[in-house]
Amino acid sequence: MKKLIVTTVLIGSICTGVFSQKSDSSIARTIYDEALIKGESYEMLEYLCLSIGHRLSGSPQAAAAVEWARQKMVEYEFDKVELQEVMVPHWVRGDLEYGKIVNSAAIGTKEVPICALGGSIATGSNGVTARVIEVTNFDQLEELGRKGIEGKLVFYNRPMDARYIHTGSAYGRAVDQRHLGAAMATKYGAVGVLVRSMTLAIDDVPHTGSMKYDSVGIKIPGVAISTKGANLLSGLLKNDPNLMFHMELNCKTLPDVLSYNVIGEMEGTEYPDEIILVGGHLDAWDKGHGAHDDGAGCVQSIEALRILKALGIKPKRTIRAVMFMNEENGLRGAKKYAAVAKEKGENHIAAIESDAGGFTPRGFGIYGEPEALKKIQSFSRVFDRYGIIDLKKGWGGADINQLKDQGVTLIGYRPDSQRYFDLHHTSEDTFDKINKRELELGAASMAVLVYLLSEYGL
Amino acid sequence: MKKLIVTTVLIGSICTGVFSQKSDSSIARTIYDEALIKGESYEMLEYLCLSIGHRLSGSPQAAAAVEWARQKMVEYEFDKVELQEVMVPHWVRGDLEYGKIVNSAAIGTKEVPICALGGSIATGSNGVTARVIEVTNFDQLEELGRKGIEGKLVFYNRPMDARYIHTGSAYGRAVDQRHLGAAMATKYGAVGVLVRSMTLAIDDVPHTGSMKYDSVGIKIPGVAISTKGANLLSGLLKNDPNLMFHMELNCKTLPDVLSYNVIGEMEGTEYPDEIILVGGHLDAWDKGHGAHDDGAGCVQSIEALRILKALGIKPKRTIRAVMFMNEENGLRGAKKYAAVAKEKGENHIAAIESDAGGFTPRGFGIYGEPEALKKIQSFSRVFDRYGIIDLKKGWGGADINQLKDQGVTLIGYRPDSQRYFDLHHTSEDTFDKINKRELELGAASMAVLVYLLSEYGL
Repeated sequence: MKKLIVTTVLIGSICTGVFSQKSDSSIARTIYDEALIKGESYEMLEYLCLSIGHRLSGSPQAAAAVEWARQKMVEYEFDKVELQEVMVPHWVRGDLEYGKIVNSAAIGTKEVPICALGGSIATGSNGVTARVIEVTNFDQLEELGRKGIEGKLVFYNRPMDARYIHTGSAYGRAVDQRHLGAAMATKYGAVGVLVRSMTLAIDDVPHTGSMKYDSVGIKIPGVAISTKGANLLSGLLKNDPNLMFHMELNCKTLPDVLSYNVIGEMEGTEYPDEIILVGGHLDAWDKGHGAHDDGAGCVQSIEALRILKALGIKPKRTIRAVMFMNEENGLRGAKKYAAVAKEKGENHIAAIESDAGGFTPRGFGIYGEPEALKKIQSFSRVFDRYGIIDLKKGWGGADINQLKDQGVTLIGYRPDSQRYFDLHHTSEDTFDKINKRELELGAASMAVLVYLLSEYGL
Repeated sequence: MKKLIVTTVLIGSICTGVFSQKSDSSIARTIYDEALIKGESYEMLEYLCLSIGHRLSGSPQAAAAVEWARQKMVEYEFDKVELQEVMVPHWVRGDLEYGKIVNSAAIGTKEVPICALGGSIATGSNGVTARVIEVTNFDQLEELGRKGIEGKLVFYNRPMDARYIHTGSAYGRAVDQRHLGAAMATKYGAVGVLVRSMTLAIDDVPHTGSMKYDSVGIKIPGVAISTKGANLLSGLLKNDPNLMFHMELNCKTLPDVLSYNVIGEMEGTEYPDEIILVGGHLDAWDKGHGAHDDGAGCVQSIEALRILKALGIKPKRTIRAVMFMNEENGLRGAKKYAAVAKEKGENHIAAIESDAGGFTPRGFGIYGEPEALKKIQSFSRVFDRYGIIDLKKGWGGADINQLKDQGVTLIGYRPDSQRYFDLHHTSEDTFDKINKRELELGAASMAVLVYLLSEYGL
C-alpha cells in the first residue's frame, strides 16, 4: 500500500497538470474535512441567532452583530479587519400589526395574520377600514382605473408558481407585487395594499419584505397577509365583493443611523491586488433570527477564511470576507462598498455571495464573461464528488450586484432551494431550522471555490 | 407564436428521435406539474402518519396501514389490487426502557436516554447492572477476550464518520455495531450491549433499529444510547474504568402474525409481462410516525401510479406499486414477494425503491448490467432540469434486493441525504419533518423514471 502511494506521488510530480488537479482534489478534501469535523460555522450562527437575534438595519442588534463579526475576524487573526461606515435607514415595526376581515356575510369578523411590509407607513390610530379589490397584476389596476380602486384596499393575490423547480424563479416572478404594489396602487387612489405572502407554503405565517414608495405620490400602508389568510379572503370576495378589511399598523421610519460593513481579509501572497470577495449580509428582517437569511451566508463566509487559515493555506490572491449591512431594505452597505472599491481603484476579480439559505449545496450561479464561466465550470473536476453540480450562468446576489459595473465576475452560492421560502422573512427563520451538516457543506464549498479562484484567478 | 409551435411539431413528426425526446420532456413536465400542483402524496402521508402512526410489523397500526394502502389503490382505480399474505415477526417494545450511569465519581447517578434495539430480549425485572467496557470494533472484543468482557456491558462507541458526504455511506460503515454487536459480545460472556446511536447529530435522541442474535449463543439485551449519552459515558470511563451502568427493558417477542404486502398495478398495453416495480415499505419502527422511513417511499410509489393515471398515460409495460411489509425487522415481505415472483415466473425488468427519506431528489442509484445503467443514464436528457443529476451505480434497496437473484435491475431513489440520519428510527421521524415540495418532487421523479422505463424497457 505504501508503495502505491509513492508511485502516485511520483507520477504527480512528473505530470504537472495531473499533479495540480490531484493537489486541488486533496486540498478540497481537507477543506471539507475541516468543515465537517472541526467546523465553527454552526456555533457562530448559534451565537448570532440566539444571543443577538434579528438585526434590522439601524437596530441595536444590528450594531451588536457588527461588533460580533468584527471580533470574530480579529479572533481568527485575519490579516486586516475593518469597519466601513455607512448610513442606513431605520424603520421600526412598532408593536401593533393587526388585520381583520370585517363583518363578512359568511364568517362574520375574523382576524387574519398580517404583518407590515418593511418601509410601510403606519395606518393612524383608527386604522384603515375599506373595501377590498383583488388583483393579480398591475395591468388589472389600469383596467379597473381610479373608479374601481379609489378609497379601497388593493389585494395582490398572484401566488408564487409552484411549477418552478427552483423556488427562487417563482419568487422572482411574484415579488413585484410586494415591492411595487403600493406605489402602483396609490396612483389610482387606493388607501392601502394587502399582499399575498411570498411563499409556496399554505400556512398562517405572514412574510415581510421591502416595499418601495414613489418619490411623488401619496404613501399608503402595505401589509403582507398569510397565504391561508389570502385564500380565505379571496374565497369570501367571490360571494361578497363589498367585503371590508380593517388593518392597524404603528410602524415608522426614524432618522438614518450610522452603521458598518464588516470587512476582513487574507492578503494574497502573489497577487495581493487581485481581490476575491466572499460575503453575505449581516442585517436581517425583524422576525425570527435571520438564520437562513442571511446569518448562514455571513458565518459561511467567515468560516471559508477560517478554514483556509486553519489549514495553513496561503492564498495567492487576496481573499476578503464582507458582511454587508442593509441588504434587506436599501442596499446601502453594498452601494457604499462598491463606491469605495471604485474610488480606490480596487481590482475585484470575483465576488461570491451566499444569500439563499444554509441548505445543502447544489452549485453556484455565475454572471460574467464566457471565459470566466468556462473556467469556473472546469472546477467541476474538484466539485463533482461533493454534489456541487450546478455551475451555470445565473444570479450572483443583491449585494455583489453593486459591483457589476466594475466588471467583476459575480457568483451566487446555490443551495437546495425547496425550504427557503417557507421561512424567508418570517418568524420561522430561526436557528432550529438550520441543519449543521448542510451549513458546513456550504461553507466548505465556498472555501473550495475561494481557494481555486485564488490559485488560478479568472 | 402559433406558427412557431406548428413548425416545431412538424419537425418533431419528421425526425422521430427528436420527437421522442421532445415528447418525453413534455410528458415529464406534465408529471412534475401534476405532482406540484395537484399532488396527493402529502395528504396521503399526513393520513398515514397522523391517523395511523408508527406501524411495526405485527402491530394493529401495521394492519391499519395495510388496509389504508389497499383502499387508496382501489380508490385510484389501479387495474389490480392485491394483498399478499406473509407471516411477520411481532416484537413489542413494552413500556419500560430505562438506563442510567450508576454512582459515577464525577457526576453520581444519572439517567441517560436509551431505547431497546428491535428484537432485543428484556432485562428481567431487576434490570442489568454491570461494568462497562467500551470498544469501537469487533477486533477489540477478541483482544479483550472473555477475561476482559465476561459479566460486563459492551459499549460500542464508533461514531458515524462525518467526512462522508453521503450520510448513507457513514451509516453503512457503522451499523455493524448495532446489527451484530450483541451476537458478537455474547461469545465473550457479555451481559448486554449499549450501542452508540446511528446518527451524525449530537443530541439526546436514541435511535432504534434491528439487532440480530445467533441461533446458538445466549441472548443478551441490546440498547441504543443517544450520542450525547455515549459521549458522556465515554468521557466518564476514561477516569473511572470501573463505572457501572444499569438498564431495564421489558420488550418481548410474541408469536408471528399474519400480515400482507400490498400490491397494485397498471397493466402494460404492449408488454404486460414486463413488470416495473416501484415501492417502499409500509412497516416503520415504533417511534415517531415513520414519516421519512418509509411512509414517504410508500406514498411516492402510489403517487407515481396515480399521476400516470391522472394524466391518461397508458404504460406500455406493467407498472406495479408494492408496499412491502417488515423491512425493518426481518424483510419477510420482500422475501415472500421475491419467492412468489420466482414461482410464477414473473419478469421484473426493473425494481425501484424509495427508502432514503422524502427529501429533495438528487438521483437514482442503479445496480444492474452495464447496458441497463447506460440506458438509465441516457434519461438524464429528461432529468437534468429537475436536478436529478446522480444516475450512478449504487445501492437499490433492502426490499428489492431480494429480487437480485432474478436478474432484475435494482434502482434506489436518492434524495438529499443530509437530514435523514437525524431522524432515522427515532421519535423525531414525524410528519412535521416532511417538506411538501420535496416529497412531491420525489414522487414526480419516480413517476418520470417509471414512465421512461415503461416506454423503453431495459
